[in-house]
Amino acid sequence: MGELRRDPVVGRWVIVDTDNPNTPADFNYEQYIPKGGLCPFCYGNEFMTPPEINCFRDPNTQANTPGWSVRVVANKFPALQIEGSLERRGIGIYDMSNGVGAHEVLIETPYHAKDLPDLLPEEAENYIKMCTIRCNDLAKDKRFKYLMLFRNYGSAAGATLEHPHTQIVALPMVPKNALEELHGAKEYFDYRERCIFCDIIRQELQEKERIVLENKYFLSFCPFVSRFPFEMMIIPKKHNGNFCAMNPEEIKALAEIMQGTLRKLKKVFENLSYNYIIHSSPINGDTEEEYYHWHIELMPKLTQVAGFEWGTGFYLDSTSPELAAQYLKAV
Amino acid sequence: MGELRRDPVVGRWVIVDTDNPNTPADFNYEQYIPKGGLCPFCYGNEFMTPPEINCFRDPNTQANTPGWSVRVVANKFPALQIEGSLERRGIGIYDMSNGVGAHEVLIETPYHAKDLPDLLPEEAENYIKMCTIRCNDLAKDKRFKYLMLFRNYGSAAGATLEHPHTQIVALPMVPKNALEELHGAKEYFDYRERCIFCDIIRQELQEKERIVLENKYFLSFCPFVSRFPFEMMIIPKKHNGNFCAMNPEEIKALAEIMQGTLRKLKKVFENLSYNYIIHSSPINGDTEEEYYHWHIELMPKLTQVAGFEWGTGFYLDSTSPELAAQYLKAV
Repeated sequence: MGELRRDPVVGRWVIVDTDNPNTPADFNYEQYIPKGGLCPFCYGNEFMTPPEINCFRDPNTQANTPGWSVRVVANKFPALQIEGSLERRGIGIYDMSNGVGAHEVLIETPYHAKDLPDLLPEEAENYIKMCTIRCNDLAKDKRFKYLMLFRNYGSAAGATLEHPHTQIVALPMVPKNALEELHGAKEYFDYRERCIFCDIIRQELQEKERIVLENKYFLSFCPFVSRFPFEMMIIPKKHNGNFCAMNPEEIKALAEIMQGTLRKLKKVFENLSYNYIIHSSPINGDTEEEYYHWHIELMPKLTQVAGFEWGTGFYLDSTSPELAAQYLKAV
Repeated sequence: MGELRRDPVVGRWVIVDTDNPNTPADFNYEQYIPKGGLCPFCYGNEFMTPPEINCFRDPNTQANTPGWSVRVVANKFPALQIEGSLERRGIGIYDMSNGVGAHEVLIETPYHAKDLPDLLPEEAENYIKMCTIRCNDLAKDKRFKYLMLFRNYGSAAGATLEHPHTQIVALPMVPKNALEELHGAKEYFDYRERCIFCDIIRQELQEKERIVLENKYFLSFCPFVSRFPFEMMIIPKKHNGNFCAMNPEEIKALAEIMQGTLRKLKKVFENLSYNYIIHSSPINGDTEEEYYHWHIELMPKLTQVAGFEWGTGFYLDSTSPELAAQYLKAV
């Protein structure tokens, strides 16, 4: 019989198949191998993107030319636009407003086919550093309430360009999924005066069976209530609500554990597509940082989401997180 | 600039691209053409499935042999199992229980490659009738709190078997997504003493621009806050909380509008995969039927869900529902 597990933060139920679990060989996923070709994110094609917003580059080179190591540009097809005001309004029963926000693309490396785990440690560190720089800068715009930093790697993960890149969207409101986590964390905090994520970390470190990697500042593990097989969470061990508040030593440790975790995932599943998303406190708001704890959600694209999941918000996980962690630890 | 629209029931925000909308020709979706081959749901292979739970068949034929028109069997690989009790328990911070429930498969037609719109009107009617019979029967089991009826059509929609089939999952708790809709509808009802869905129907009938089809009892339209391009909702015009409470005339009208709506969708997008999900009131519970209004959510698989949507619950709709309805009406 399967096991029903309830997410302690958002209350989502997941059915975990503990009887006939899928092993890595059982997954028939879409393999992703970069094809190359003309790419706006490669050296020499800087003119194909909007001008750079920020960049780590050789001081002897000019903006929007080769010589950079990490480069940030506006998204050419932004979901939201930086100019204008929200102008909230109603049409009968419906609410709407203008699409004000920002949508930036962070080109992680000049190498078209180098995924994050393939970078040198200092390159990965610079990538994380640039993520925090852009977030800190965007947070200064008081119109924005939430920063969404995410990465789609591979076609099955919805990446439309091959060249490794991360996207940052600044939103004029706190999105639903973030609100749910914030509410769950606040309820727990109000009741127990403790951060729910700190309690999760404590229990995971004690039980050990779902942990994948650990260093001085971070932990990566397969959550007890994983929605997807081989889903992982990367989280700072010390309470911290805000992704951008890391010090240089923590940035280095995060780059290390992200590379290590992805390297393991990609050893178990060759040419896998995946998404990761940074969940951090809202910006320009209240003191959510007391009860919220930032973390990264890593979602391998091994399965399809179908009608059942869409309808219920109820997930079927065919590999228990305990088993997934075993495979990940072994490589 | 895009438009931000807020769902009146669940509060989800969607960014609708009203400036550079995608037209049908812009979508590069995975085409689905049934390949055939050995199929456990075809005539003559009845022995390959668990024994039938219910069936419309020629009275001169025997159970689990050919001669049926609609056939219901237990899922061979059930997400939840019918035997046992829930036994809710905690492990530290985590909650869990046994996977008790039911998981049935409704084989819609003996024809391997006939999708719902290809059936004769009376065949489609019998399909809907069987859905209500099974739901009414499952609702008698007091352990079940929610019935989830959904259909995955085509590989991109997560269907693992080609032969057209619908799944019914009986759950021991009301799932998160249903709770969200119920809460939203209840809040509105408490405040205005009106059903929010009845108000939506009223506004849609008045504005007309998002309506796709209409008959005496039902309406199909592209919701003002569509998450996906060409998403549709099919809803009874008269307030009714429970899918299973339809009379024969309404069942006939539902079959008709479902066939018509799908036929239009498949004329605009050949060989398209799609999901639909029936949202109905919980069972064995309170009087949700006063403020909730059952409906069908129809989701064409034209795009991929990527990191942004996963992280935020915020969707990007590249074709406004007004434009989608125009294309659907025109065919």
